[in-house]
Amino acid sequence: MNHSKWIRSEFRKMSQDLGFLFTPREEIENRLVRIKTLMSKSKIEALLVIQKMDYFYLSGTTQDALLFVPLEGQPLLLVRREPERARVESPLDDVVATRSLRDFPILIKDHYGRLPGNLGLELDVLPVRDYFRYQELFSSSQIVDSSPIFRDVRKIKSPFEIGLVRTAGDIAKRVYVDAKSILKEGMTEIEFGSLLDAAAKRYGHEGLLRVRSLNYEAYSWHVVSGLTGGIVSQSDSPMGGLGLSPAFPVGASRKVIKAREPILLDLGICYHGYQADQTRMYSIGEMPRKFINAYTACKEIHDVLLEEVRPGADTEALFLKTLVLAEKLGYKDSYLGPPGLQTRFIGHGIGLELNELPFLAQGHSTPLEEGMVFAFEPKMVFPGEGGVGLENTLVVTRNGYEILTPTENTIFQV
Amino acid sequence: MNHSKWIRSEFRKMSQDLGFLFTPREEIENRLVRIKTLMSKSKIEALLVIQKMDYFYLSGTTQDALLFVPLEGQPLLLVRREPERARVESPLDDVVATRSLRDFPILIKDHYGRLPGNLGLELDVLPVRDYFRYQELFSSSQIVDSSPIFRDVRKIKSPFEIGLVRTAGDIAKRVYVDAKSILKEGMTEIEFGSLLDAAAKRYGHEGLLRVRSLNYEAYSWHVVSGLTGGIVSQSDSPMGGLGLSPAFPVGASRKVIKAREPILLDLGICYHGYQADQTRMYSIGEMPRKFINAYTACKEIHDVLLEEVRPGADTEALFLKTLVLAEKLGYKDSYLGPPGLQTRFIGHGIGLELNELPFLAQGHSTPLEEGMVFAFEPKMVFPGEGGVGLENTLVVTRNGYEILTPTENTIFQV
Repeated sequence: MNHSKWIRSEFRKMSQDLGFLFTPREEIENRLVRIKTLMSKSKIEALLVIQKMDYFYLSGTTQDALLFVPLEGQPLLLVRREPERARVESPLDDVVATRSLRDFPILIKDHYGRLPGNLGLELDVLPVRDYFRYQELFSSSQIVDSSPIFRDVRKIKSPFEIGLVRTAGDIAKRVYVDAKSILKEGMTEIEFGSLLDAAAKRYGHEGLLRVRSLNYEAYSWHVVSGLTGGIVSQSDSPMGGLGLSPAFPVGASRKVIKAREPILLDLGICYHGYQADQTRMYSIGEMPRKFINAYTACKEIHDVLLEEVRPGADTEALFLKTLVLAEKLGYKDSYLGPPGLQTRFIGHGIGLELNELPFLAQGHSTPLEEGMVFAFEPKMVFPGEGGVGLENTLVVTRNGYEILTPTENTIFQV
Repeated sequence: MNHSKWIRSEFRKMSQDLGFLFTPREEIENRLVRIKTLMSKSKIEALLVIQKMDYFYLSGTTQDALLFVPLEGQPLLLVRREPERARVESPLDDVVATRSLRDFPILIKDHYGRLPGNLGLELDVLPVRDYFRYQELFSSSQIVDSSPIFRDVRKIKSPFEIGLVRTAGDIAKRVYVDAKSILKEGMTEIEFGSLLDAAAKRYGHEGLLRVRSLNYEAYSWHVVSGLTGGIVSQSDSPMGGLGLSPAFPVGASRKVIKAREPILLDLGICYHGYQADQTRMYSIGEMPRKFINAYTACKEIHDVLLEEVRPGADTEALFLKTLVLAEKLGYKDSYLGPPGLQTRFIGHGIGLELNELPFLAQGHSTPLEEGMVFAFEPKMVFPGEGGVGLENTLVVTRNGYEILTPTENTIFQV
């Protein structure tokens, strides 16, 4: 059978029967209205959207494509592979197949009537060599940076997006419950982590956690136990763990999990592209009092921060408040990492990527707004001993917040 | 305890006991000699290595860092997080801790005596915004593109690197053997795939498969069965599968695996950063004759290509030869994808990344050289019906090749 014909006749029903949700037309239209408001403010005549999560946000497809969005008129999706599938996945009306970058200016001219005076590209992620190519192809257009407006528009989540994060949080809850029966003394961190990841995939987790960064990588088997919880590594997080090799020096390792040590599970879960992030503690038998106390301090910081979360609260002030509280509780030298290696954030926006706005961090003062979704993670690190923490993902509501990660806030002792 | 002190006193032994191999000093020195030869040819005075796999290749660590490599003199590793651990992981002598990009020119000047006249950066991956920042920081240096020499130096693998790919292939063999007992009628593709991935991690697979690309993502649960094997999606491969959602429209889906349909497992496995890639077919009971015949054709193409592999063989000629053979065997419209969507390569270099040199592809004419490692994958795709294929990873030797993926070349019927 012809592939295009099969996609047109069978694909929609089959994929929906197997759990695909397609982004509704109204949702895409609302996002386009919102980004056009920002384009207008920034005097950007048109966007050429090159990054997968950015064009997924505005088109509903992650097929290999670029998206042209003029301030006036309809967007045009230029699809390299596979165009017929993109037509089903995206509610956009104008979808053209193309194989070569060279054709883009012609196709855009055909669609828009001319080439735009300026053209926004995401310069925070676009590789330089591609930039030079676009400069040549669009030599009459001034290229400007569109990444600030993408970060801006994506920081406020719609009810549709919040629903997907909520589902990711519900999947995570099932995994954290299963963890109690999967965890056995004598298994390695990576065995435990890989079984949790398999359970997560069975419940709908998609496997990849996306990050907006050249070198930063995320993964969903962050299990540290006992002294690996006291190890800092490459990642900008309080503890990176030991990992599996110098090529992958973070997360679960081949260390055997023992009784009575603190076991920390920090698992990102992804559903339809949207991530929920959370951390819970486990132990086989009771963990030493030192770690229980440190966890209790994390819980107190967690709860005090929650009391402050509402529209208008300042993100930097929230971070600084937790610093003061951690010091008051006696954890100045353990909070968010060991001395000299402490991270300077308590929360990070999350959605299609793990490092979205807002950042609840030093130097990032901005008011919280309704619809912002972020994860916040008080953690304590004791080099040579271990680490503990608690993390949840929430959405800022009109009067406060709603937790999207419903797993019980407790130490799970098995 | 102090984190640096713990890393210095305990980390090396603990990580080695748990399976870490550190890149030997001699290996790093050889790589530096080889890249300096290429720098000299390209008249590059110094490199500032920004991409994680590139600086891992030359330093042995993936801690968050940049690596300065002057043509004359010693390299300098500038580490943001975590410097003490980088000192253990890397055999380089000059490792400095730094937090801010702004300090780089000063640190480099201190080390090198001056700022270089020109500075090579990997412009194929460096984001434009970072490029502008480096232009400012190194305003007296001309910035040139170092990515061609990185692709060039990394295309020939050392015995140390080949050994790591071989281990990845050995891990894969255990997974493909386990697959026979894991596979059950009625499980979904993603259940099967996630259990294979868990088995792989238990045997040493590191989970992430790296690709040198902004948008291209790889994953190790590429399981397609029956008609999902006939679906093309975003990836530049013959069949992408259905996937789990429009946000992740490739690989294993929630489709239930049935008896007597072709089941294709294309699993990349990663060990100490090095990947081996392979594909094998499975079925529960016998698959229809059409697919067995198509597999037999893939096997014939596979074997004929192997006969030609030796230093000096032309990569494009090898690809074209398989095209002619596929047509002769009656698979013109199925080979490497359905009509209009056929990929134009039969093999891809592999190592730290999934898309290294050489490409056995149309428009990529270059002689094979001893030490090149590539995967090659004859596949047949039948939209609405299914797909089959066979893939192995090999290294080009002095007189021919050595297969690095030792799983038996056969259809595994359970």
